[in-house]
Amino acid sequence: MTDQQDRYAQRGVSSQKEDVHKAIKNVDKGLFPKAFCKIVEDVYSEKEADPWCCVMHADGAGTKSSLAYAYWKETGDLSVWDGISQDAIVMNTDDLLCVGITDDIYISSTIGRNKKLVPGEVIERLISGTEKFISKMAEYEVRLIPTGGETADVGDLVRTVIADTTVYAKIRRSRVIDNARIQPGDVIVGLASDGKAVYEDFYNGGMGSNGLTSARHDVFAKYLSEKYPETFDSGMPYDLVYSGTKLLTDVEPETGLTYGKLVLSPTRTYAPVVKRVLDAYRTKIHGMIHCTGGAQTKILHFADNVHIVKDNMFAVPVLFRTIQQESNTPWAEMFKVFNMGHRMEFYTEESYAQDIIDISESFGIPARIIGRVEKGNGTKASLTIRCPMGEFSY
Amino acid sequence: MTDQQDRYAQRGVSSQKEDVHKAIKNVDKGLFPKAFCKIVEDVYSEKEADPWCCVMHADGAGTKSSLAYAYWKETGDLSVWDGISQDAIVMNTDDLLCVGITDDIYISSTIGRNKKLVPGEVIERLISGTEKFISKMAEYEVRLIPTGGETADVGDLVRTVIADTTVYAKIRRSRVIDNARIQPGDVIVGLASDGKAVYEDFYNGGMGSNGLTSARHDVFAKYLSEKYPETFDSGMPYDLVYSGTKLLTDVEPETGLTYGKLVLSPTRTYAPVVKRVLDAYRTKIHGMIHCTGGAQTKILHFADNVHIVKDNMFAVPVLFRTIQQESNTPWAEMFKVFNMGHRMEFYTEESYAQDIIDISESFGIPARIIGRVEKGNGTKASLTIRCPMGEFSY
Repeated sequence: MTDQQDRYAQRGVSSQKEDVHKAIKNVDKGLFPKAFCKIVEDVYSEKEADPWCCVMHADGAGTKSSLAYAYWKETGDLSVWDGISQDAIVMNTDDLLCVGITDDIYISSTIGRNKKLVPGEVIERLISGTEKFISKMAEYEVRLIPTGGETADVGDLVRTVIADTTVYAKIRRSRVIDNARIQPGDVIVGLASDGKAVYEDFYNGGMGSNGLTSARHDVFAKYLSEKYPETFDSGMPYDLVYSGTKLLTDVEPETGLTYGKLVLSPTRTYAPVVKRVLDAYRTKIHGMIHCTGGAQTKILHFADNVHIVKDNMFAVPVLFRTIQQESNTPWAEMFKVFNMGHRMEFYTEESYAQDIIDISESFGIPARIIGRVEKGNGTKASLTIRCPMGEFSY
Repeated sequence: MTDQQDRYAQRGVSSQKEDVHKAIKNVDKGLFPKAFCKIVEDVYSEKEADPWCCVMHADGAGTKSSLAYAYWKETGDLSVWDGISQDAIVMNTDDLLCVGITDDIYISSTIGRNKKLVPGEVIERLISGTEKFISKMAEYEVRLIPTGGETADVGDLVRTVIADTTVYAKIRRSRVIDNARIQPGDVIVGLASDGKAVYEDFYNGGMGSNGLTSARHDVFAKYLSEKYPETFDSGMPYDLVYSGTKLLTDVEPETGLTYGKLVLSPTRTYAPVVKRVLDAYRTKIHGMIHCTGGAQTKILHFADNVHIVKDNMFAVPVLFRTIQQESNTPWAEMFKVFNMGHRMEFYTEESYAQDIIDISESFGIPARIIGRVEKGNGTKASLTIRCPMGEFSY
């Protein structure tokens, strides 16, 4: 076990979720085993030449809600809960984008809280945050449909509050984006994770809702452990608890945001962009990857016998540089945990790349060809990242 | 605040979820505002004379998983996790039954765990428990369709493990059971929550997945607080923590089960029974209530200006008698938290009652007319429970 793996283990997380993958290895993979989400038959529709199939998918804001809690307690700023609602939704919707679903998505939220610490005003804000995000997406012709949810008082299980979302959507079989089509010769177009999209109100630090246990403890300073012991697992070795140097309210100079707000940047959705791209080029897209758990190595779960080269990535945004500086995490590891600059990838022929880039940039989101797919030399996919910090092989 | 309310507040729970109801009071109630679940338009289907509509719904095993954890640690018995999977599913499916959906239900599970305490073998068992329950239901022509799920390592949020499920299903509008039809003259047929149904392997104590925080702390003895401090909120006053007299492994004499297993009895599904009942009498059923949060008072959320009289309920099963004895909870309160003998109610004309009872009993589940609907004398519904322990008004 490397030092870094040991650090994860002691914090009760992993970047690769090995034992979860083992637990589900015999679970049926659905109609498109290489697709980004599990796609199953639509049992309600008639048999047709191009049948409907459907996706039901679940994810959440993870331990970002623990940071939101600390920030809210520290500053009284309820708006951080809007971001948590967005995180819980976008971690799902942007997975769906990768199978070609960009619209008409049913969403259901599950909130578990410690009622003594998390009052009704926070629940109200989480619910209104969901509604606000739905309205914003409607402006960009992305329809999300709210359904029944659940708020449970489970203080014996949940230290503060946990926010999860489940989504359901249907798609015609012929319209599915299936990563099985990723092939040598493809270029990879990456869409930036930081900056300010036209549909965002503030600079976004680029954080999704992965790697938050590391980011929170590595960036923020020990004072939080005494002020808010409910925000971490008391079984964690004390030297790994809030081992950084920043206060939540310290201001990051490049962006002018507090470090708290920077790390709490709501997970950006790419739905308005991807909807436009797929409207124009659906059949030309060979694959799409949402760089969540596993981050820049996520592609390795979805491709076989190719060599992925990422050698033209974006400059690393200040948030991820800060996390690296505070934690001294090896760069090779950083790329496995954090998106490091782009969270959405299109795999396609080079001739379509510029149009995709143009569409993305019309929404204020920089995009570029960040790499390409080469022939593999075995059965498994491999990945090389080349960047100013070095060359890393996975 | 009564002593009992204060006891709930200090334990961080409530039987009525007042602040959650307040938080969602402006949320759209869907196509059938009085239906048991929120029903929304099916945006994918064509406009038809009898259109499809759909339900997406979320619930979970609640703090029952905290008890499963203690029991598993104490005895090594992994089978308790099968029950938690069933709890998380049935809390949803049996809500769907109440709007008339008995089949072809998509399910997605979300598990949040403290990886340091809950290893892969538990996750595997939760997943295989889901598969086992799906197979069992298939034998009774109830089709549940597994989809994508999520297992998150969130030890900074979750003390042990939380198991939630979300379901999706479609139904023709004409087939919806809408509690708006509940009316004076209806009888209430209750289906027993305890005993052993033909599709169950052991005596079921009758527990759903509500009221578990009270049940766990009221029944089990203080030793658990020292052995398994991870199973409760350390912010709870110590005298309310595991304040009962039982060991997990003490044997309850009437049933021969340990008290641990008795409280952990998996939430019984009524799906095979309800499917048969609705196949025969769908249009005759005026309403259905799944007695979960609010228990025997749940009906009050769904009826207007009627007086509900429940004066012929089942004898209280030993599990609920035990909880009452251990906690000294007033009987009037017990009926608001625990189902006390039946967890499913049909509201219908008396002439159909015996056939419903016969169908239920053919599955080994006792059923009876437990009460009736009378004219109300105001705009709100009221409820009277008459039983050997007294008369209680709500």
